[in-house]
Order: sequence, then structure tokens, then C-alpha cells
Amino acid sequence: MSSTAGQVIKCKAAVAWEAGKPLVIEEVEVAPPQANEVRLKILFNALCHTDVYFWEAKGQTPLFPRIFGHEAGGIVESVGEGVTDLQPGDHVLPVFTGECKECSHCKSEESNMCDLLRINTDRGVMINDGKSRFSKNGQPIYHFVGTSTFSEYTVVHVGCVAKINPAAPLDKVCILSCGICTGLGATINVAKPKKGSSVAIFGLGAVGLAAAEGARISGAARIIGVDLNPSRFEEAKKFGVNEFVNPKDYDKPVQQVIAEMTNGGVDRSVECTGSIQAMISAFECVHDGWGVAVLVGVPNKDDAFKTHPVNFLNERTLKGTFYGNYKPRTDLPGVVEKYMNKVYDPDQIDVKRLILVVKLQELELEKFITHSVSFSEINKAFEYMLQGKSIRCIIRMED
Amino acid sequence: MSSTAGQVIKCKAAVAWEAGKPLVIEEVEVAPPQANEVRLKILFNALCHTDVYFWEAKGQTPLFPRIFGHEAGGIVESVGEGVTDLQPGDHVLPVFTGECKECSHCKSEESNMCDLLRINTDRGVMINDGKSRFSKNGQPIYHFVGTSTFSEYTVVHVGCVAKINPAAPLDKVCILSCGICTGLGATINVAKPKKGSSVAIFGLGAVGLAAAEGARISGAARIIGVDLNPSRFEEAKKFGVNEFVNPKDYDKPVQQVIAEMTNGGVDRSVECTGSIQAMISAFECVHDGWGVAVLVGVPNKDDAFKTHPVNFLNERTLKGTFYGNYKPRTDLPGVVEKYMNKVYDPDQIDVKRLILVVKLQELELEKFITHSVSFSEINKAFEYMLQGKSIRCIIRMED
Ligand SMILES: NC(=O)c1ccc[n+]([C@@H]2O[C@H](COP(=O)([O-])OP(=O)(O)OC[C@H]3O[C@@H](n4cnc5c(N)ncnc54)[C@H](O)[C@@H]3O)[C@@H](O)[C@H]2O)c1
Ligand SMILES: NC(=O)c1ccc[n+]([C@@H]2O[C@H](COP(=O)([O-])OP(=O)(O)OC[C@H]3O[C@@H](n4cnc5c(N)ncnc54)[C@H](O)[C@@H]3O)[C@@H](O)[C@H]2O)c1
Ligand SMILES: [Zn+2]
Ligand SMILES: [Zn+2]
Ligand SMILES: [Zn+2]
Ligand SMILES: [Zn+2]
Repeated sequence: MSSTAGQVIKCKAAVAWEAGKPLVIEEVEVAPPQANEVRLKILFNALCHTDVYFWEAKGQTPLFPRIFGHEAGGIVESVGEGVTDLQPGDHVLPVFTGECKECSHCKSEESNMCDLLRINTDRGVMINDGKSRFSKNGQPIYHFVGTSTFSEYTVVHVGCVAKINPAAPLDKVCILSCGICTGLGATINVAKPKKGSSVAIFGLGAVGLAAAEGARISGAARIIGVDLNPSRFEEAKKFGVNEFVNPKDYDKPVQQVIAEMTNGGVDRSVECTGSIQAMISAFECVHDGWGVAVLVGVPNKDDAFKTHPVNFLNERTLKGTFYGNYKPRTDLPGVVEKYMNKVYDPDQIDVKRLILVVKLQELELEKFITHSVSFSEINKAFEYMLQGKSIRCIIRMED
Repeated sequence: MSSTAGQVIKCKAAVAWEAGKPLVIEEVEVAPPQANEVRLKILFNALCHTDVYFWEAKGQTPLFPRIFGHEAGGIVESVGEGVTDLQPGDHVLPVFTGECKECSHCKSEESNMCDLLRINTDRGVMINDGKSRFSKNGQPIYHFVGTSTFSEYTVVHVGCVAKINPAAPLDKVCILSCGICTGLGATINVAKPKKGSSVAIFGLGAVGLAAAEGARISGAARIIGVDLNPSRFEEAKKFGVNEFVNPKDYDKPVQQVIAEMTNGGVDRSVECTGSIQAMISAFECVHDGWGVAVLVGVPNKDDAFKTHPVNFLNERTLKGTFYGNYKPRTDLPGVVEKYMNKVYDPDQIDVKRLILVVKLQELELEKFITHSVSFSEINKAFEYMLQGKSIRCIIRMED
């Protein structure tokens, strides 16, 4: 039992007071965890584009003041009533989409969209009592996607926490808690390219590069990277991308360019941009008869996906996925094990789900980490992403 | 060798001279088959809605004069140069989408959209020489989808002809050459509902009822029929439909009605209407996390499929299919065998494709046939369909 258990903790957090304005490191109060909640000491964060979208709040609902952050690693500080699978000292990854293990989604082998704990970007409070655990001078500060990891301590529902091997380096595996699993799983679990096939990846940020890594691990022969930012292309070679298309270089739609390059279209495509135009192109560039396109990017609230229905009739498939269809508590420990090249331990991993992690022995996380800053420099991480410079920037909470 | 081989045949055909005007039974000339073509004596037709759409030519390209008809059964009269797998006397079903057995689609296990012989509703000529085999007083008459079976004799590419068991009753199995296989395969081969699951069928014409039959054979527990025409509901009970929704009975969108009936959405849906609104509803009514929707209906040329991309992101899948993903030459003989409850003959059926036909022992074709007319009364078949009275009306060519 830690000495802080049951107490309010005062600690530093990066507070977003207004849309688009630099975060301010403030001393905040973090209430103890309630029933089915745990309080975590966060050691490492990485910045994902989803944080940036909701901080900019351009195409999204604004909710301020708010503590962002959802790609992180930490250690359990204390647990609330009724929490039995976690205890203080456990190494964990918080995840923006949870797993209650009771609902029809958690019981389905196909879905990871838990009825109780699925991502809800508009909710800024804990589900237990509809209140925030964060405050400053009595003023509540909103949560973000149930994680709010840009704080030295945060309170999270137990269903949104994956317990991992304590030997895993948290400064690396923290990126599995969102972007990397999202992209990797979108390819491996959802698009499922065959050996020797062709795959187009739209958007070569961390999510897209992880999707490319998934295509590489699956043995795809042609991995075509599509990005408006050509500075991504050099980096992308490390992730197996072996052809590049910049839509700006052509007068015709990029789906047509890709169809011409591939004798009618790619076998698979994965969209990792959040741009509605890229979503439509990613769908329309897959081959008729067998092509499968997978949407990953988070669209604006008012976007409409629009295509001629004959594009479906011609035997194309379109799907979307959250978090690469991984079930966070069930699958994430295994992904971490695989990253560590450990031998598979049947007591740790649900055998039915093994197929989801078994291909990952080749996974190289270090390639994704291009920058690292101390917590006090967190706004630099935002700048790197907005300038398209970083893939993932690690934020060291204890520096 | 028949005495007519190599000769022009004069015979009766139902010619559509103008969009939407009654067909006229005319004496036409049918040229002999060229290389890779066969000439068929047609014994039975059934009317499918696709014939009616292109005859009305409202949302479709008009091409007249034209001989419609594509759901039929007949006997090979003569074969052109290079045809080795068919000979005069073979019992066959012509199919609107062919199988060359050479292209990437024909070689793929997933696709049936042959590069050479896939459906092309705008082409009115044979691919061999770009000309018609039909004429009246020297004026060419256009073909329709490579079949043009509303004629006592027609010329078809050998790749669009499935050779079937000569013991099969052509007046029944003719409906397998389009509508029934289309609906059945959309469910069994593409939507793949699990035992005990829920399935919504949009449109309860022959195609939709065949899709329902596929759901029944697959062991679906709830089969929800959706149609604007409530007179379809009684009939649909025979095909396993056990709940009904008429969108006209509600103020809210039908996808919302279905979501409320099914605790969030059906597991599978199959759209068999051709209405763009029904296509959108069929997609949006499937459950998030695992729902799969399949489009079958032929849309208008200018229709746009429109939905919020988050409907995909929430782990729904949308696909389309032609001819229920059956490969006509490879699979149709086996479907006919199954209908006849014959023992599976490994010399007749490609073993890899067996899964597609093995479930069909329960298939009851008679239920689909509600009307029958002689060739001279063919316009009645159009009236029955336009009035929503018939499921399938057989047209007896020799009466
Ligand atoms: N579905 C999920 O579970 C999930 C999880 C995490 C992130 N996301 C989303 O995935 C997307 C990618 O995240 P990221 O962190 O890799 O972002 P990122 O900003 O690092 O990368 C996005 C890339 O897309 C490129 N791009 C933008 N518009 C484009 C267009 N029209 N065509 C081609 N390229 C285009 C940008 O230049 C950039 O390189 C975001 O929308 C994010 O919100 C979804
Ligand atoms: N993809 C393929 O390979 C293929 C093959 C054959 C037919 N088709 C198409 O399948 C569709 C069905 O063919 P059919 O012969 O069964 O036609 P049909 O006219 O017998 O049946 C269509 C049914 O849909 C109903 N309907 C129309 N609009 C509706 C709506 N908005 N909501 C609910 N119900 C609605 C009608 O009342 C009718 O009962 C047609 O569009 C046809 O062109 C496609
Ligand atoms: Zn993220
Ligand atoms: Zn759940
Ligand atoms: Zn048809
Ligand atoms: Zn072919």
C-alpha cells in the first residue's frame, strides 16, 4: 500500500485551457480512485494526432479546460474498491478504448468496441459518478478519452488498463497504447494482406507507418506509401514502404494513379490520415473482385463518405477499425511479450487470440521514436507533429 | 451436328423497339456462332428486375432495338470454332457474367468478375467482332448482357454458359441463372451469417427471398424482411422471414427502427432493392463491432452512396456482390446438383469450391415460381413484376 493511497495527490499536469493554445504545466489535485478505478503514476507519454485534433478543436467538439494524453505507460499507485486484477506497483499501459469483459462486444471474438468503455471523445468525466478526478483550486478539469495521461498521476477505469510484463521498457512500449497497435492491427487483424500482395498506406505518420510495418510483417510485396508530405518518404523506407505517391504531383485523382500503377488497383489499402478525401481514395483504389480497404483516421464531425454504389457492387469491401481490433486487456500483454521476443506463455495470453500476436516477433518499436522531450517541453512535441517532423515524440514525465 | 449448324436461323424473338413500350414478337435472323461462341435453343425464361430497368431505361443508358432476357435455360444448338467444352445437345444455363478461366479474377478464389466477360449493361454487341448476331430485315438488334434470351435462339460467348445435368428440369433451374443464385450467394457466400444470428433482408422480390432462403439455410434465428410493399410479407414467410418492417409505417429512418428491434443492429443485412436509400439503410442498420452489410441491387447511374465515415470506423463492413460471388461455369453445375439432391460427384465439381454448394441441399426452387406464361404473353410477365405481383414468372418459349 503506497502512502498516498486514499489521499488527494498534488502533482504536475499539462492543462489545455483553451483550444489551440499552448498547454500550461500546472499543479493540479488528483482525487483517489473510486470503485473500479485505478490511479496511475505516468512515466512516459507519446503524442498522437488524436490529442492534437481535440486540442485544436477545429472539426471536433471543444471541451476545456482539459488534460489530454492517451499514449502512455506507467505504474499503478493505488486501486479503488472492487479492483482485483491490478495492484500497486503493476506496470501498465492505459488505453483509450476499454474492455469490461462482460458486454456483448467483449464476449464477441470480432469486436473490441466495449459497450461500457469504448472511446467517447465528447465525455470529459469518469463514468462512475459523472465527475472529474482532476481539479485546480476547486475548478474541475476535464478528462480526455478516459486516460488524460499528460499528468504525473491520473485516474483510469480498470477496464482501460492493460497489465504488462514489468521487464518491458516503458519508454518504448508506451507507444503500443495507441498509434502503433492501431496501425499494426489495422493491417494484420483487419486488412489481412496475403504474402506477395500489394498494399497502399494513406498517411505516413506513426499510425500509417505501423500499418506499413504490418504489411511488411505479413509479407506484402508492394507497399505503396501515399502522403502529401514528401519528407515522410525517406523515413518510410525503414517500414517496408517501397513505392511512393504524393497526390500533389498529379492532376488526376490518386485512386486513378494507383489503379494505373497496379493493373487495376491494390489488393489492400489502409487509410491513416483522418482526411475524408483520403478515405474515399483509399476505398476507390482497391482492386475490384477482392480488394479490401480499411479506415483508421478520425474524421471531422461533419464529414460525409461518398462514392458510387457500383464501387461496392464490383466486389470491393470497406471496413473501419478502432485500435486495430485489439482487445486492450486481452491482447496487449501478448503484443508486449512478442515485442520482447519472449516465449509465448499460455498462462498469460488467451489462446484463441494468439493469432493476433503471433506474427509480431519482428516488430521494431525503436524505429517509430524520432524525438524525446522532458515534460516541461511538452509543447515542443505538438510543434514537431504539426510541422510533420516527428513520427512519435516521447514525453519523459520524470525529467 | 444439327441441320441448322452454320446457317442463319429464322425464329421468334421478343424485340424491345423503344424504352418502356411493350415487346413485339418478331421473326428475326440469328447468325451462326463465331469463334468461342455457341448458339442456344432457349426453352424457358424467367423475368428479372434487371431486364425491366434497362427496358424502362429511366436511370440507365438506353440502347434500342434490343432483345432482353438473361435468366434462362436451354440446349446447345451448335458451337463455333474453338469450342471444346460444349457440344450440340448439352443442357445449359446462360449467365450474364462469364468466366474465361484465364484472367486474374477467374484465377482468384474470391472474385467472379471475369475481366473479359463480366457484366456490361451498356454493350449491345458480341465481343468477338463488335457486332450483333440478331437482325430483322438487315437491321441489327442489340444484345443485352451477352445473353438476350427472349429469343427462341440466341448466341452467347462460351464463357457465359454453364453446362448442367441434363436430368435437371429446365423450367425450374432456369431461375438459378440469375436471381436465385444472386440472392442465395449474397447471403451464403458473402454475408455468411452465423447460426442463431439476425439478418435483415431489404427487398422481398425473388433476389431478396433467395437471400432470405440463404439465411434460413444458414440457421439464422431472426430474419427481418423489409419492403415497401406489404403484400410481399405473407409470401416471404415461406422463405424463413419471421419479422417484417415496412419503412412507410414509421416516421424515423428504418435503420433506427431495426436497431431498436435488435439491441443495436442486426448481425448481417442484404440489400436487394436497387434503391440507394435502402442501400444506405441496409449498411447503417448492422451492429457496430461485427455487422456486415452486402449490396446486391443495381443502382441508378447517378446514385451516390453517402454515410458518416464513423459508421465504418465503428467496425462495420460493407461489401457488394454480383451473382452472389458464384463463378458461373465452376459453381453452377454443383448448385444444380444440390438442388436435385444428387450425391456430390468429385469429377463434376471443383473441390476447392465445394463449400459454396454444400449447404444447398435444402434449396426449394418451386417456391419462387408464382406465375407462368407462354412466349406470346411475355408482356404479362412485365406487368406482374411492375405491379409487384410475381416473384418469378416463367416464360415458356415453346408454347
Ligand atoms: N481508429 C483509431 O483507433 C485511431 C487511433 C489513433 C489514431 N487514429 C487516427 O489516425 C490518423 C493518423 O494518426 P497519426 O498519429 O499517424 O497522425 P500524423 O499526423 O502523424 O500522420 C498523418 C499523415 O497523413 C498525411 N495526410 C493528411 N492528409 C492526407 C491526404 N489527404 N492524403 C495523403 N496523406 C495525408 C499527413 O501528411 C501525415 O503525414 C489520425 O486521424 C488519428 O486521429 C485513429
Ligand atoms: N448484383 C447482382 O448480381 C444482381 C443480379 C440480379 C438482380 N439484381 C438486382 O437486385 C434487385 C432485386 O431484383 P428482383 O428481381 O428481386 O426485383 P423485385 O422488383 O422483384 O424486388 C425488389 C423489391 O424491393 C422492394 N423495394 C424497392 N425499394 C425499396 C426500399 N426503398 N425499401 C424496401 N424495399 C424496397 C420492392 O417493393 C420489391 O418488392 C434489383 O435491383 C436487380 O436489378 C442484382
Ligand atoms: Zn491515439
Ligand atoms: Zn465490454
Ligand atoms: Zn437478373
Ligand atoms: Zn476471366
